[in-house]
Amino acid sequence: MITCSVIGATSFTGNELIRILSHHPHVKIGSLTTRSEEKIYARDIVPALGKTNDLVIEKYNFHRVVKSSDVVFMTLPHTLAMKVAGEFYDEDKIVIDLSADFRLKRADVYQNWYQEKHQRKDLLKHAVYGLPEVNRDLIKRSNLIANPGCYPTGSLLALYPLVKEDLIKRDSIVIDAKSGVSGAGKKLSMATQFCEVDENFGAYKVGRHQHTPEIEQLLSEVAQSKIEVTFVPHLLPVNRGILSTIYVKRKPGIKKDKLVRAYQSFADSEPFIRFLGVGQFPTLRSVQFTNFCDIGIALDDRSDQVIIISAIDNLIKGASGQAVQNMNVRLGFPEEAGLIS
Amino acid sequence: MITCSVIGATSFTGNELIRILSHHPHVKIGSLTTRSEEKIYARDIVPALGKTNDLVIEKYNFHRVVKSSDVVFMTLPHTLAMKVAGEFYDEDKIVIDLSADFRLKRADVYQNWYQEKHQRKDLLKHAVYGLPEVNRDLIKRSNLIANPGCYPTGSLLALYPLVKEDLIKRDSIVIDAKSGVSGAGKKLSMATQFCEVDENFGAYKVGRHQHTPEIEQLLSEVAQSKIEVTFVPHLLPVNRGILSTIYVKRKPGIKKDKLVRAYQSFADSEPFIRFLGVGQFPTLRSVQFTNFCDIGIALDDRSDQVIIISAIDNLIKGASGQAVQNMNVRLGFPEEAGLIS
Amino acid sequence: MITCSVIGATSFTGNELIRILSHHPHVKIGSLTTRSEEKIYARDIVPALGKTNDLVIEKYNFHRVVKSSDVVFMTLPHTLAMKVAGEFYDEDKIVIDLSADFRLKRADVYQNWYQEKHQRKDLLKHAVYGLPEVNRDLIKRSNLIANPGCYPTGSLLALYPLVKEDLIKRDSIVIDAKSGVSGAGKKLSMATQFCEVDENFGAYKVGRHQHTPEIEQLLSEVAQSKIEVTFVPHLLPVNRGILSTIYVKRKPGIKKDKLVRAYQSFADSEPFIRFLGVGQFPTLRSVQFTNFCDIGIALDDRSDQVIIISAIDNLIKGASGQAVQNMNVRLGFPEEAGLIS
Amino acid sequence: MITCSVIGATSFTGNELIRILSHHPHVKIGSLTTRSEEKIYARDIVPALGKTNDLVIEKYNFHRVVKSSDVVFMTLPHTLAMKVAGEFYDEDKIVIDLSADFRLKRADVYQNWYQEKHQRKDLLKHAVYGLPEVNRDLIKRSNLIANPGCYPTGSLLALYPLVKEDLIKRDSIVIDAKSGVSGAGKKLSMATQFCEVDENFGAYKVGRHQHTPEIEQLLSEVAQSKIEVTFVPHLLPVNRGILSTIYVKRKPGIKKDKLVRAYQSFADSEPFIRFLGVGQFPTLRSVQFTNFCDIGIALDDRSDQVIIISAIDNLIKGASGQAVQNMNVRLGFPEEAGLIS
Repeated sequence: MITCSVIGATSFTGNELIRILSHHPHVKIGSLTTRSEEKIYARDIVPALGKTNDLVIEKYNFHRVVKSSDVVFMTLPHTLAMKVAGEFYDEDKIVIDLSADFRLKRADVYQNWYQEKHQRKDLLKHAVYGLPEVNRDLIKRSNLIANPGCYPTGSLLALYPLVKEDLIKRDSIVIDAKSGVSGAGKKLSMATQFCEVDENFGAYKVGRHQHTPEIEQLLSEVAQSKIEVTFVPHLLPVNRGILSTIYVKRKPGIKKDKLVRAYQSFADSEPFIRFLGVGQFPTLRSVQFTNFCDIGIALDDRSDQVIIISAIDNLIKGASGQAVQNMNVRLGFPEEAGLIS
Repeated sequence: MITCSVIGATSFTGNELIRILSHHPHVKIGSLTTRSEEKIYARDIVPALGKTNDLVIEKYNFHRVVKSSDVVFMTLPHTLAMKVAGEFYDEDKIVIDLSADFRLKRADVYQNWYQEKHQRKDLLKHAVYGLPEVNRDLIKRSNLIANPGCYPTGSLLALYPLVKEDLIKRDSIVIDAKSGVSGAGKKLSMATQFCEVDENFGAYKVGRHQHTPEIEQLLSEVAQSKIEVTFVPHLLPVNRGILSTIYVKRKPGIKKDKLVRAYQSFADSEPFIRFLGVGQFPTLRSVQFTNFCDIGIALDDRSDQVIIISAIDNLIKGASGQAVQNMNVRLGFPEEAGLIS
Repeated sequence: MITCSVIGATSFTGNELIRILSHHPHVKIGSLTTRSEEKIYARDIVPALGKTNDLVIEKYNFHRVVKSSDVVFMTLPHTLAMKVAGEFYDEDKIVIDLSADFRLKRADVYQNWYQEKHQRKDLLKHAVYGLPEVNRDLIKRSNLIANPGCYPTGSLLALYPLVKEDLIKRDSIVIDAKSGVSGAGKKLSMATQFCEVDENFGAYKVGRHQHTPEIEQLLSEVAQSKIEVTFVPHLLPVNRGILSTIYVKRKPGIKKDKLVRAYQSFADSEPFIRFLGVGQFPTLRSVQFTNFCDIGIALDDRSDQVIIISAIDNLIKGASGQAVQNMNVRLGFPEEAGLIS
Repeated sequence: MITCSVIGATSFTGNELIRILSHHPHVKIGSLTTRSEEKIYARDIVPALGKTNDLVIEKYNFHRVVKSSDVVFMTLPHTLAMKVAGEFYDEDKIVIDLSADFRLKRADVYQNWYQEKHQRKDLLKHAVYGLPEVNRDLIKRSNLIANPGCYPTGSLLALYPLVKEDLIKRDSIVIDAKSGVSGAGKKLSMATQFCEVDENFGAYKVGRHQHTPEIEQLLSEVAQSKIEVTFVPHLLPVNRGILSTIYVKRKPGIKKDKLVRAYQSFADSEPFIRFLGVGQFPTLRSVQFTNFCDIGIALDDRSDQVIIISAIDNLIKGASGQAVQNMNVRLGFPEEAGLIS
């Protein structure tokens, strides 16, 4: 039995981690921590836990966490995460960091997008980008797993088969992404007040969202050449889910069958990828409260335009579910453990 | 042509006042003010204003407002409003105050419910409770009109005919009220974050909401004897509207016809009351974006239980529309002026 | 291992039954049936099922279900259910019927509220009203369990402790209930079109909802004297959940402590009742996707008014979860089996 | 004073027409018609109308409408509209048809996208596509105005300045459009049931929506060469509004200033176009309940990608408001008449 702790247990992603880990067959929960002084019962913020569940969320204490953990899940805000993650890594814990701090390989790119100097550049080379469908072998051997952002998860899983098999023009990628509000976390903000979001819809950070370099970095690695994308996020008046509508141009001569086979074989070998086929498209409902990424495609023969639509639950496959999937991969558990009811 | 100013023009109710006053046939807008330094165009926060509308919202300046106003609408928070309203009153302006500061006749009751000492007790006797359907004659003669709260407006208009004609048991009143989120104003709050409100519903301030004494005060005046009510507000996942389901016991011997006639004659004489009849009930949709209060009733002959359901738009009949209706009454304009498209 | 079938597997409650039963530790699924000809995979309408789940929903065939079932869950519409339920009962199956057909003990009352003559009056005396918190011992011995309606579940669990201990005036009960839209099922209706419900709210079937006699029947049994209630349902613009705000008058001399102890001891002995205390109230969020019923109360000492607020998930504790709880009780499984993750 | 009638007055767009026309300064309402037998008061389905408004919606009668109308607005479903519109056209009425029946110039294209043979091919050459910003002069002279679809309105107004001034590559246009549910009209459908739409989001008719040929036809006319577009509509869980995110590649050498000037001069000369600038983007809230189309743009210098975002209210600028704007143009009224409060 492996012991897991969650640093930042009161966040949305912290709540999901508690929910998933509490019925995971191969782990038990060590420490659940928060920055506030007050001790609270996890069952009071995670209603699905039983009445008699006695897990407690307590003020963060490094030594207590070190003693009580084999794996440390971290949901701290970026820039705060890097220091704390480093300390657990230095103690030989397996760190699964849900922040952005170890996702980008280059400190200058990080500083450019997050307006903060990186404090643990020494660790960047040890970190692995925790998208199991792409980096499974690296994840098995790393103690510092940078859990991908929610937008990149949905976009990368949709694009990976086409980029890997070199079926599309690399300068043609447009990602039009739409996310539920929980992606913004629990911090107070005018932009996420009910009266702002309800019955409303709009784009934000057009062409300058901080998840862009993650997407470009992994696609460039897969393609072994530089790829840049156009990425436009939008805020949906829903709680959970990301739907990404992605527009690319196929390479000359690439037939529809080839596209289909690329997705089909990807889905066949991956436990959490479902390919719906040509002309069949997922909705948020298809994936909410699950760790699945559902994908459908269309091809316009006139214009060579390929349209790929992917859907994920931003808090599960886009965050906490994927974090547990990464733990399962790292520790050799069945990859679905705790993730399929 | 009368000149009106709005103090607190960037609030939800301030925005509605700008929208209504800008197409009111008998007024022009003097000053629109805010507490922030930055000057903004009204058209940037009130999208219905035309592109060429050049109304400007500027930092509050008492003397400028005095010079440019016959009527001053105030949407300041309570406790802040009393001082400012007093200053305009002292300058012989007609003050229509949307805060709670002059609604209660007794300073001790105010202090009890709002946890603040009243600073202008001297004005309480000059203020009139601005519910035109009940106090029209008083409103015509007052320069300090306390615009009712949104919940009290919906509840009082539903109960007034029965209490005035003494048809119900006075100790039996239960008000189960449900409000949209704009009633809470624009201030940042965890309780009004999208992820808290969306797909959720619950009661708050059960039996201790600060609108309770307003309701009790006016009903007691109408009945000429003390009336207490049970009032339970709930928060709906919608932007606008209040629906109140009200339970009372009829007095022995009161026939259904008598109840119906009370409402019918009320509606016949009031421009903004619509009575739907027995077994016909309003929804929020019936009244959103209007100044109407719609009312329907049911009677259970077995139990003497009368059920009254009323609906209003909390920002219009529950706030800014009623404020303009009060101005119309005070200045002898047609009561519907600016309020019916 | 017990084998369960679901008749009406494509309904909302059918989907929930599939989801719950598929990870229940003590059962396996026999037949899943529908009225349509087309065979479909359960995983295509219950996204939480794994990709490799191969449960199939097939056209209803009585003999196949008889052969493959120890327990038959039925989600058919009322009047259709009575005939089918009777056939399985006659074959000595354990029938858990989610329709209204066996909830009322008297055929004339049924006919009065449902406008249909009862076809299996002979079975009414064998049926037990499946609210485990009240009828646990009867459920253990019955093969025809009438699963309560969603509204009655929320109302009855809130009122049971007070009625049983005779703490309130029996002629004072007012139930103001608010339900999410899934309570109306999947059938097409103008009243449940998005543009009707969204941003809207209203009451319906005021004083004449067909769940009223269920509530009155069980309360009268508990009180051993006739109880009538005022019941007003409302439609909320949310998917799931029922919140009931209930108003009753305490009997003279009943102290607050006595009320609190009644709820506390109820919650202490029941696995799915959570009592939040005095002045603490549940929201829909507290119970969505769980089998819990959460309860909070307030007491107004001036008026003897007791306010009770209960919340349930209408599809789980109000339907499919409670059905599984009933099965657990009937078969001697742990009552939480399959219902707490 | 001109007299207008509305054929199909109970539809969403019919309701909006009644609301707008009832306070239009230069028109009075003749007949309001429906297909059902029952006579209803317009005030019962258009709550903003005053209590004393006595407009009645009656069963359609051709001769009565002919006698009582200078202008006939039609909101009938396509294929039904063409016959009726033709009859009024033959009587020399000004027909403003909100259906798709006269939008496409070629009967074969119509048949291809709408699966119906066109019955009034003779009229196609007389019809003008009623987008005033593009076809104002033609509209002034036509008695058969085909009011554009809601999606095309938002897309065409966003693309028109760039196509007209030949600033973009014509084979690069991708339109990712998101619409509220009222765009689907009032007809019952599973796809528009609350429980399907709420908390959900997805694409539909990907690459095969019937509004595609309208967009291509007008852009091709403006460009004087064939233009094809990729058009993907999505359904938003909101009542009203369309936001279109449009991706195009600028032509080599086109500077950002040139793009900005194109939009700025368009907005300067058009009463209902508001250009927000570079890096400023509209939301649905900016335009709901108005006849405005708001536009913002971004340019990625690296990739030549231009991103244009436009927002309209689908029922106003996308339907009924634009229909009234067309009438204003046709009859020489001020273009804003009835459309700015």
